[in-house]
Amino acid sequence: MKFNIALLAGDGIGPEVIDQAVKVSDAVANKFGHEITWKPALTGAAAIDAVGEPYPDETHDICAASDAVLFGAIGHPRFDNDPSAKVRPEQGLLKMRKALGLFANVRPTFTFPSLLEKSPLKRERIEGTDLVFLRELTGGIYFGEKGRREEGETAYDNCVYTREEVQRLAKKGFELAMTRSKKLCCVDKANVLETSRLWRETVQAMEKDYPEVEVSYEFVDAVAMRLVQWPNSYDVLITENLFGDILTDEASVISGSMGLMPSASLGSDIGLFEPIHGSYPQAAGKNIANPMATVLSAAMMFENFGLQEEGKAIREAVNKALNEGIVTEDLSDGGKAYGTKEVGDWLASNI
Amino acid sequence: MKFNIALLAGDGIGPEVIDQAVKVSDAVANKFGHEITWKPALTGAAAIDAVGEPYPDETHDICAASDAVLFGAIGHPRFDNDPSAKVRPEQGLLKMRKALGLFANVRPTFTFPSLLEKSPLKRERIEGTDLVFLRELTGGIYFGEKGRREEGETAYDNCVYTREEVQRLAKKGFELAMTRSKKLCCVDKANVLETSRLWRETVQAMEKDYPEVEVSYEFVDAVAMRLVQWPNSYDVLITENLFGDILTDEASVISGSMGLMPSASLGSDIGLFEPIHGSYPQAAGKNIANPMATVLSAAMMFENFGLQEEGKAIREAVNKALNEGIVTEDLSDGGKAYGTKEVGDWLASNI
Ligand SMILES: CC(C)[C@H](C(=O)O)[C@@H](O)C(=O)O
Ligand SMILES: CC(C)[C@H](C(=O)O)[C@@H](O)C(=O)O
Repeated sequence: MKFNIALLAGDGIGPEVIDQAVKVSDAVANKFGHEITWKPALTGAAAIDAVGEPYPDETHDICAASDAVLFGAIGHPRFDNDPSAKVRPEQGLLKMRKALGLFANVRPTFTFPSLLEKSPLKRERIEGTDLVFLRELTGGIYFGEKGRREEGETAYDNCVYTREEVQRLAKKGFELAMTRSKKLCCVDKANVLETSRLWRETVQAMEKDYPEVEVSYEFVDAVAMRLVQWPNSYDVLITENLFGDILTDEASVISGSMGLMPSASLGSDIGLFEPIHGSYPQAAGKNIANPMATVLSAAMMFENFGLQEEGKAIREAVNKALNEGIVTEDLSDGGKAYGTKEVGDWLASNI
Repeated sequence: MKFNIALLAGDGIGPEVIDQAVKVSDAVANKFGHEITWKPALTGAAAIDAVGEPYPDETHDICAASDAVLFGAIGHPRFDNDPSAKVRPEQGLLKMRKALGLFANVRPTFTFPSLLEKSPLKRERIEGTDLVFLRELTGGIYFGEKGRREEGETAYDNCVYTREEVQRLAKKGFELAMTRSKKLCCVDKANVLETSRLWRETVQAMEKDYPEVEVSYEFVDAVAMRLVQWPNSYDVLITENLFGDILTDEASVISGSMGLMPSASLGSDIGLFEPIHGSYPQAAGKNIANPMATVLSAAMMFENFGLQEEGKAIREAVNKALNEGIVTEDLSDGGKAYGTKEVGDWLASNI
C-alpha cells in the first residue's frame, strides 16, 4: 500500500521523537512492502514563530490531503503563564481537532511487566491493567460558546452535546468493546448534568444493538477513585471531552509507563497519532527523550489502516528493547542509558 | 458556650455513625463546659419517603436556625439507575448547599501512620501527605442553566462564575494557607475555559494581599496526575465546583484512610460537617460502619467554632483508638473488630 502521512513534529522534544517514529515506520514499510511519503508541516509554537499561528491553513491542507497525521508534541513555557495570550499553541490543537473532525481520542493505559516497579501504585493494584479510554474530542465545554458579561465580572462556558455526537463516539466504544472483553463503562455525571443525562440515555438506547456488551454507568467522581484503587477492573471507557481530559491523564500515570503511552484521535476519515507526553522543552535537543510512545503511536497508525501485523512488529520490537534494556535514561535505572536516536536505530533494525 | 446543632442523619449507615458523633460531641461538651441541643431533621431518601422531597422546608428551617449542621450520608440504591427520576436525594444536597450558602467545601486528605499500608500507593509516595482542597460548592456548572433544545436532541449545561464568587472562595484559601505552610495551588483549565481564566486572574489579583503566600497555578489534568504521583507535594488547593468534585474524590482514596476522612462546608454563617463516605446501604443497621469520619467531622465543627482544644481532644481520641486497635472491621485486618457503637463508646469515654 501507499500512504501519504503528514508529519507534525511540533515543539521541544517533538522533532527528535518523531524522527525515530519515521525511521521505525519506514523499516516496517520496507519489510511489508508499503510506501510512505512523509509530508512535514508546521504546528505549535514552531508555527507561531514562523507564520504567526499554531495551526496554519497550509498545515491543515497538508493534513487534510494525507492518509494520517503523525504528531510529536506542542507547547512552550513562554506561553504557560499567560493563559489569556491572544495566540497559544493549544488553540492550534483545538482548531486542528475540529478541522479534521477528530471526535474520538483513543487513550490506552497498559502495563509492561518490566516497568511495574515504576508505578506509584502497589504492584498488586496495577498488575494486569489494560484499559482504553475513548474521549469525545470535538464537543462539550471545550467548543461551546464562552465569554464574559457584566463588564468582565461574570464568565461563562457552555457545555453542549447533541445525541448524534454521543452516538458516533459511543459506537466506536461498543465496537472496541466487541474486540476486547465486551465490557463498556460510560462515565458521566448524570446526577447533576443534563448533557450527562443525554449521554446516558443515548448509550442506554444503543445497548440493544450490542447485546453481547455488558455496559456499566459510573459517575466521573467514582471513576476518579476507582482508577487509583482498582485500575485493572476497567476495560473500555467512554466519556465526554472534559471528563476525558482529566481521567485519561490520571490513568496515564498509574501504569508507571507514561513515557510509553501512545494515543490516536480518530474521526470519520483521517486519524492523528501522537504520544501522550508533552514537549518537555528542558530535554529538547539533548538526545535523551524516550521515543517509544511516539513509535507505539505509529503502531496504532498501522493498526488503524487495518495492518495488524505491521503494528505487531513495532510492538514486539519495543517489548524486546525493554527486555534487553535498550532504553533512554528515564527507564535505565542507573544502568546503561541509550540516546533517543540510538533507541530509534535499534528499534528500526529489529523490525 | 451553648449550641443548637441540626442533626441530619440521612440514609443507610448515616443514623448509626451520626449517633457516635453525637455521643463523642456530648462528651466533649461535658468536659469543656458547653451545652449542645441537638435538632434532628429529615433529609435524603428518608425525607423523600416521609414527605416527598429530600430537603424539606422544615429541615431547612431547623438548619437555618442552628449554629451548625452535622450530616450523616444520603443516597439509596433505588435512585441510582434512574438519573432522570423527578425526585432524587442528590437534589436535596444541592438545594441545601445553595439555601444555606455553603460555598466552600473543605476536604482534607491526610494519612495515619498506622494506616499507610491501606493506601493503593506505595509508602514513599503517600507518606506525609497532608493536603486540603477548598472546593467551590454553590456555583459553576452545577447551578447554571441547563436543559434541552431541538426536541430533546441537544442538551446543554451552563458553567457560570462571577468574580465575587471566586474571591470569597479564594479568600478562604489564602487564609487557610496562612495557617499552614503558606502554599496555595489554584487549579483550573485556563488554557481552554473562560471561567477558568476569570478564576486565574482573580486569584492573581489577590496575591498582593497575601504577600507571604506562594501561589501556583496548575491545570486540572496535571493535578489529576500529580495527586497520584506526588500527593505530598500539595498543601492547600482551591478549585471550582466540578473539578473539585472529581479531584477531592481522587484525593480521598490515595491516603488509604477514606473511611476516616471528614469534611466541612462553610459559608458566611452556618457550617455543615459530614464524613466524605457514602450511605453504604449494604452495611446499614449491622453495627459495622466506621464512625470515625463522622466523629472527625464533629472535630472540624468544634474547630470552626474556634474551639481548637475541643477538636484536638477528639482527634487525640481517634488516634489513640487507631493505635490501640479499637476499630471497625474495615480497619481490623483480621484482628478483633469492634462494632460502630462500641467504637463510639470507647471514643466518648476517652475524651
Ligand atoms: C492542551 C489542552 C488544550 C489539551 C486538552 O485539554 O484537550 C490537552 O490537555 C490534551 O489532553 O490534549
Ligand atoms: C451527589 C453529588 C451531587 C455530589 C456532588 O457532585 O457534589 C457528591 O458527589 C459530592 O461530592 O458531594
